[in-house]
Amino acid sequence: MTLPPEFDLIDRYFRPLAGPGALDLADDAALLRPPPGRELVLAADAMVENVHFLPDDPAETIGRKLLRTNLSDLAAMGAVPLGYLLTVALPPGRGVDWLAGFAAGLAEDQRRFALSILGGDTVSTAGPVSLSLTILGHVAPGTALRRGGAGIGQDLWVSGSIGDGVLGLRARRGEVADPQGRLAGRYQLPQPRLGLGQALVGLATAAMDVSDGLVQDLGHLCRASRCGAVLDAAAVPLSVPAAAWLREHPGRLGDLLTGGDDYELLFAAPPERAAEIAGRAEACATPVARIGHLVPGDSTVTVRDRSGRVMPLGRSGWSHF
Amino acid sequence: MTLPPEFDLIDRYFRPLAGPGALDLADDAALLRPPPGRELVLAADAMVENVHFLPDDPAETIGRKLLRTNLSDLAAMGAVPLGYLLTVALPPGRGVDWLAGFAAGLAEDQRRFALSILGGDTVSTAGPVSLSLTILGHVAPGTALRRGGAGIGQDLWVSGSIGDGVLGLRARRGEVADPQGRLAGRYQLPQPRLGLGQALVGLATAAMDVSDGLVQDLGHLCRASRCGAVLDAAAVPLSVPAAAWLREHPGRLGDLLTGGDDYELLFAAPPERAAEIAGRAEACATPVARIGHLVPGDSTVTVRDRSGRVMPLGRSGWSHF
Repeated sequence: MTLPPEFDLIDRYFRPLAGPGALDLADDAALLRPPPGRELVLAADAMVENVHFLPDDPAETIGRKLLRTNLSDLAAMGAVPLGYLLTVALPPGRGVDWLAGFAAGLAEDQRRFALSILGGDTVSTAGPVSLSLTILGHVAPGTALRRGGAGIGQDLWVSGSIGDGVLGLRARRGEVADPQGRLAGRYQLPQPRLGLGQALVGLATAAMDVSDGLVQDLGHLCRASRCGAVLDAAAVPLSVPAAAWLREHPGRLGDLLTGGDDYELLFAAPPERAAEIAGRAEACATPVARIGHLVPGDSTVTVRDRSGRVMPLGRSGWSHF
Repeated sequence: MTLPPEFDLIDRYFRPLAGPGALDLADDAALLRPPPGRELVLAADAMVENVHFLPDDPAETIGRKLLRTNLSDLAAMGAVPLGYLLTVALPPGRGVDWLAGFAAGLAEDQRRFALSILGGDTVSTAGPVSLSLTILGHVAPGTALRRGGAGIGQDLWVSGSIGDGVLGLRARRGEVADPQGRLAGRYQLPQPRLGLGQALVGLATAAMDVSDGLVQDLGHLCRASRCGAVLDAAAVPLSVPAAAWLREHPGRLGDLLTGGDDYELLFAAPPERAAEIAGRAEACATPVARIGHLVPGDSTVTVRDRSGRVMPLGRSGWSHF
């Protein structure tokens, strides 16, 4: 008897991604001997067409974005990637070409980030493409970076640049000029800061990744650390195209501080560790910037402009509902 | 600043499900110290509205079915449940009542099966409800039941009864009479055979769970074990309502052998272990039946009727595409 088409699809596109423990994706489950003496780090993210990516985004980047948003969660904990499980719900309109591209993107990022697929499920849907990925990583026991360890008076830092993701989405929609495609590229292909995250273990007092807007996510860090924060908006690092956009749209810095899809690391550390942080960040070729500090308060985030005035923001970040 | 509604939903409905390592679902990832000296078992299943469940199925049973289909994969490997990660994509029409029921179902089955949530993601979708669950379990290293260990001449066994799932789906659609709701109950709430799976470690030579139709799934076991099988259709155990349906629909036994949603264990063992298998199954109060044997062949499954004639089957099982 012939196999249903989904088994052929799994054979052709997902089996080549299978690594140690995946049992060739041909059993009921994967088997994994955890690295001895390490603590496991586990996260799951979902991505839905028209919410997290656009229907005409290349399939290659969709698979990579899904993997990278999860890798960004590992980075935020200071973890080393180990493997992942993936479920894919596909509507009839997405044929083998789409799946071939999706898997090719995963294959490329598996090599880049040194992990492989452990298992998953491929099903049909009458709705938009719905993806879910669970990632596994590991850290030395008790060393994972957490959101709730920052103290009053400590510095706030962020990696890379903020605001490219939301501008990239607008560029993909034709609302923002993006002649070189650099903004769209940041929206489609975030850069998980794994090296930096691992370098911050034992140094940062709290860390998280910025996915739903810097101001909103900073609020989460403050809530977990039981403090407030002052964010110096002018210190927030912007990319060249984002800075150019801001010059043409003065007064719209808030859009960048509350847009999503940055996937940068936000972290706290005592002021006396600043030189060490700068050194470790340079060693892993990841720019970092000091953007504020922690103050007493009930998780209130105060955003100040160049002249010290409080900036009014219409919202703090992305909301699904 | 107020939190977006999804954080309130997570607080109210998912945080109470969080167990050890979940960090109250308030960090970027979960932290898990794997049980020392054990091998991890990992599986992921997706469920989509109108494909795996019906829009008017109770939310309570949808959450439980999702968890149980994954627990069934652990059962097939002989594993002990440990925890799970869950992603939920919800359309605007599914309000807090639905989510409250969904989480209440999960809470009940967490208690029943002794595991808890480790992490996840809640997002919006314009399409049907899309769910994905990744489950973790553990076994003694090297003891997991696999699909590929059965040998020619060995017996084939199945737990419980076959065909209730597909009849239950038809009952839910009004196509099959189901006055006591027992068939619909089996469709909505499968029984993962965790006790039996664990009892078969060291005894069964191959095992898997039956989810896409007995004949098709037996083909997978044969492919992995590099043999063929003869299935004695009259020996396949049927529930009282399924047997009653078959009496009214003579000649339709094939529907039951190729329908999905059984979530029973299919396994192989040498004939001389039959008494031991029966004893262990009885000890965990799970009925088992011998339904055939393994023969030389290239994964061909031959289904014979009561008189030994080959039964023609229109299909072997469920296909998504």
